[in-house]
Amino acid sequence: MRIGFIGLGNMGAPMAANLARAGHELVAFDALAAALAPLAALGARAAGSVGTLAAEELGMIITMLPASPEVRAVYLGEDGVLASVRPGVILVDASTIDPHTAREVAAAAAARGNPMLDAPVSGGTGGAKAGTLTFMVGGEAAALELARPVLAAMGRNIVHCGGPGTGQVAKIANNLLLGISMIGVAEAMSLGTSLGIDPAVLASVINTSSGRCWSSDSYNPWPGVVPGAPASRDYAGGFAADLMLKDLGLACDAARRARQPVLLGALAQQIYQQFSARGFGRLDFSAVIKSYRSDRPDDA
Amino acid sequence: MRIGFIGLGNMGAPMAANLARAGHELVAFDALAAALAPLAALGARAAGSVGTLAAEELGMIITMLPASPEVRAVYLGEDGVLASVRPGVILVDASTIDPHTAREVAAAAAARGNPMLDAPVSGGTGGAKAGTLTFMVGGEAAALELARPVLAAMGRNIVHCGGPGTGQVAKIANNLLLGISMIGVAEAMSLGTSLGIDPAVLASVINTSSGRCWSSDSYNPWPGVVPGAPASRDYAGGFAADLMLKDLGLACDAARRARQPVLLGALAQQIYQQFSARGFGRLDFSAVIKSYRSDRPDDA
Amino acid sequence: MRIGFIGLGNMGAPMAANLARAGHELVAFDALAAALAPLAALGARAAGSVGTLAAEELGMIITMLPASPEVRAVYLGEDGVLASVRPGVILVDASTIDPHTAREVAAAAAARGNPMLDAPVSGGTGGAKAGTLTFMVGGEAAALELARPVLAAMGRNIVHCGGPGTGQVAKIANNLLLGISMIGVAEAMSLGTSLGIDPAVLASVINTSSGRCWSSDSYNPWPGVVPGAPASRDYAGGFAADLMLKDLGLACDAARRARQPVLLGALAQQIYQQFSARGFGRLDFSAVIKSYRSDRPDDA
Amino acid sequence: MRIGFIGLGNMGAPMAANLARAGHELVAFDALAAALAPLAALGARAAGSVGTLAAEELGMIITMLPASPEVRAVYLGEDGVLASVRPGVILVDASTIDPHTAREVAAAAAARGNPMLDAPVSGGTGGAKAGTLTFMVGGEAAALELARPVLAAMGRNIVHCGGPGTGQVAKIANNLLLGISMIGVAEAMSLGTSLGIDPAVLASVINTSSGRCWSSDSYNPWPGVVPGAPASRDYAGGFAADLMLKDLGLACDAARRARQPVLLGALAQQIYQQFSARGFGRLDFSAVIKSYRSDRPDDA
Repeated sequence: MRIGFIGLGNMGAPMAANLARAGHELVAFDALAAALAPLAALGARAAGSVGTLAAEELGMIITMLPASPEVRAVYLGEDGVLASVRPGVILVDASTIDPHTAREVAAAAAARGNPMLDAPVSGGTGGAKAGTLTFMVGGEAAALELARPVLAAMGRNIVHCGGPGTGQVAKIANNLLLGISMIGVAEAMSLGTSLGIDPAVLASVINTSSGRCWSSDSYNPWPGVVPGAPASRDYAGGFAADLMLKDLGLACDAARRARQPVLLGALAQQIYQQFSARGFGRLDFSAVIKSYRSDRPDDA
Repeated sequence: MRIGFIGLGNMGAPMAANLARAGHELVAFDALAAALAPLAALGARAAGSVGTLAAEELGMIITMLPASPEVRAVYLGEDGVLASVRPGVILVDASTIDPHTAREVAAAAAARGNPMLDAPVSGGTGGAKAGTLTFMVGGEAAALELARPVLAAMGRNIVHCGGPGTGQVAKIANNLLLGISMIGVAEAMSLGTSLGIDPAVLASVINTSSGRCWSSDSYNPWPGVVPGAPASRDYAGGFAADLMLKDLGLACDAARRARQPVLLGALAQQIYQQFSARGFGRLDFSAVIKSYRSDRPDDA
Repeated sequence: MRIGFIGLGNMGAPMAANLARAGHELVAFDALAAALAPLAALGARAAGSVGTLAAEELGMIITMLPASPEVRAVYLGEDGVLASVRPGVILVDASTIDPHTAREVAAAAAARGNPMLDAPVSGGTGGAKAGTLTFMVGGEAAALELARPVLAAMGRNIVHCGGPGTGQVAKIANNLLLGISMIGVAEAMSLGTSLGIDPAVLASVINTSSGRCWSSDSYNPWPGVVPGAPASRDYAGGFAADLMLKDLGLACDAARRARQPVLLGALAQQIYQQFSARGFGRLDFSAVIKSYRSDRPDDA
Repeated sequence: MRIGFIGLGNMGAPMAANLARAGHELVAFDALAAALAPLAALGARAAGSVGTLAAEELGMIITMLPASPEVRAVYLGEDGVLASVRPGVILVDASTIDPHTAREVAAAAAARGNPMLDAPVSGGTGGAKAGTLTFMVGGEAAALELARPVLAAMGRNIVHCGGPGTGQVAKIANNLLLGISMIGVAEAMSLGTSLGIDPAVLASVINTSSGRCWSSDSYNPWPGVVPGAPASRDYAGGFAADLMLKDLGLACDAARRARQPVLLGALAQQIYQQFSARGFGRLDFSAVIKSYRSDRPDDA
């Protein structure tokens, strides 16, 4: 299938490369022209603008953009996708944005005769390169079945979450919980070690008890407890604290719009914000444990 | 081995019964004389007081008491265990109390020539009856090896956590995390469904993603998501919200003493307190999701 | 001076009426035509659109709008103020919006040759009717001096806060503190009375001690403590909880943009959100004390 | 009147000195014998123990002790006040402790025939020296009237709060609100200045608006805003953050016992705890604003 791909950042570039390697014919666009070179080497063709890309004869257009305003501009702008795309082309937005915007854009696409899927991913840049992402997909089941073979070239799990926007809902609900759990683990590990238990022993107790969670058993924030985790390499790589801050912001905004309280979620966001304000926003989000293991010069 | 057992409440009674069934000779005491009858039917002998029990020729004394003041009274009181127990008898306190008190009592026992283990349990009354409890044990490894065959008649997992008090530390650190995670799941499930995703779909996404945790995959607070969980039977049985409130209180108190911040933990405690103040303290703690799924008469 | 006035809602209508009564020649516009009738009775002329109003020969244009999107549309829209206004006309936006938008609009106005002031108010509909509002004003001092006699017809205190946007900054910082203080008073009054002190006695102690604040001495949330306060008339009138929720939202959003933590502020917002979700959003914000004085059927 | 005085710490010593200067005949005791010398120079006599002091012919005994355990020991201990005091002697405890203990001790005193008042103070060491303390008094009005002339030698305001324990209730409710308000002011000032307003201008707006409070107008945490406040002398002197932490601990404990939620209060306590854990516990509590004005090396 000939596929248009818009947005070749840290995530988009390796995803598009996997599509090219899987034999798909690609037409690509990025606001940064230089981003197209590596993809051209894999046989992809560059488009001069969103509009010219959208006007081509394509089976599908995939977008991978930083945030809601970019998604809005790329789809609804004057020279945007919906202004030029042919009816029937399937539109897949893999960006992580608020569900409200996702639904608004999907409705505009439907009105134009284009089925649209919101398909945010988890798995990070590692998963993007390895082609092992998880796609959380909102939209019509029929459209997803058509898109599935294409998505399968980029990810391992493709989960249908329901109608338009529910892919975004699943992503932000999961990350709300993740952001809370990680701080929960940071507090439990810090309290336990303050009180004299060995951190590896505490983690092993928790991991076989009711406190068990991904943030403890697969991504423990205490250095050395999980050898492969960012905590064991000075919190380099992984999922930046500033990205967690962005996702918790999406969750809190969506909650406000729905008048749904999220007390722990809002406090968790503030704790990452305090952490980011201290200059640590580029570290992996598990480094938030630094807010709990401070030196104590004044302690008797 | 002849064993003294003090404290035959909801947890202690089935634990002692399992010991009797395993062929141990039991001498038992409870402030409530009626609590002894079922155990007598299994061959146990009743002692008239803590002091007379402690004065007997025993290999081990096990206590299962409600809170720190009772533990202090039973061990350190005028007619308490330490006033009469013979040197060398192993003391095992299975109560959940603060680590500070556990260490103080263990030090007093050591001074008297009695090795002492703090051995709080998880698994609830179900685990106590089935003999499948987990023991989190603090104290000398040698004493634990002597106690292990006895504990094995009451529980399935026996984890050595380190020196005196670390069993309590492991328990309260795990439950701190559990209390936070459960509210995290409640917020994520409530936000997701408010935004239009099906709760079972959302749970299945979370359970295979980074939000995965025991509170979501084994004990989900949304009715019907996990068939056997308390949420699927109107939050009856399980682990009462008031007990979670007690354990979070122990965690916050220990944190204060150690000058260790636990921001989410303290807020979680308040959320259970608010829930308990509304009259729901006897429901399973997963019912805290009721604080998030309110009716909204004023909503347009 | 001939003045254009846009936005005749609960606040704008009485403000415009005071201008008319003070002898100013008014040209007014509101999206709701019916809103113009009472003003016409005071001699004001109706304009057919924002654009036709802006094109008139005026000394000043005042706007009083619900939120940022409306301000953006009225000033920057195709038929907006800046498209037609003559250079030199002073623009005064009395809406409460985010400082970022205020600065963006002020910069666009300056580029067109129009001095602009952001001038959000406090004092509520009571102050609007009585002409006793406080204006917190951001922008050039010279423009404020020209506007001052006009603002004085609507308000009693006119405070210059600094350059463009600082009027909004002062408003949201004050209301952030107000939202927190009110909950603080609610917690202190609820805790004190739970512990057996008379609420009037407690309030009088606080009001002469270090807990003293406007939320306690002038607007106490406990019924009967301050006779004229909303608490003493079933929380009718006053400043709606949903408006406090909006203002705390502005504060949290501005804080996020500035990467400035506001831990208590974010939690306070959630507490009003929880309160609003229960259907109480139209009550005065001091009614949030209801979240703390629940009935306790299960209490022994 | 001949008066016994127990506890000559930072607060007790100047209070007792004011009594001596007012012509009262004093018998004093402190566990630290050296503490008695300055008082002896004013004519006071030293007692050898609590018991011998209590056995003397006295009109009143006043105690000023660090916390509940000391109060319990001094009144209820084997050699304590109640073991030796003559019936009818009025007992006044000026310590700040939990209301529960205050009531327990008062009940024991009443059973012995001794009217007892809980009379915690505000005003700090400055107020103690100047004799300008505020006494918040719980207990019988008749006993307070007898005590009033004596208290008047140490303080300026003497407020009757109700029955036994209500003096403590008033103190902890006020300080709960104070601890919250100070952080509220810290957040509002930090947010405002982050967004570009001058701190002195912001404070002056707040102080004439609905955010007005003692923490802003008399004790502003921003350096230079209130010349005499601790913020203007590097947060030296004043009311130590660790003492605020202690008082918020009393409030949270009392709330837990009463099953009364205090969400902002519990979070405020954690914020002071985090601050104290960084080694700042001896600074004035207004220094908590340092948690909000961090350097931001990573900020672009």
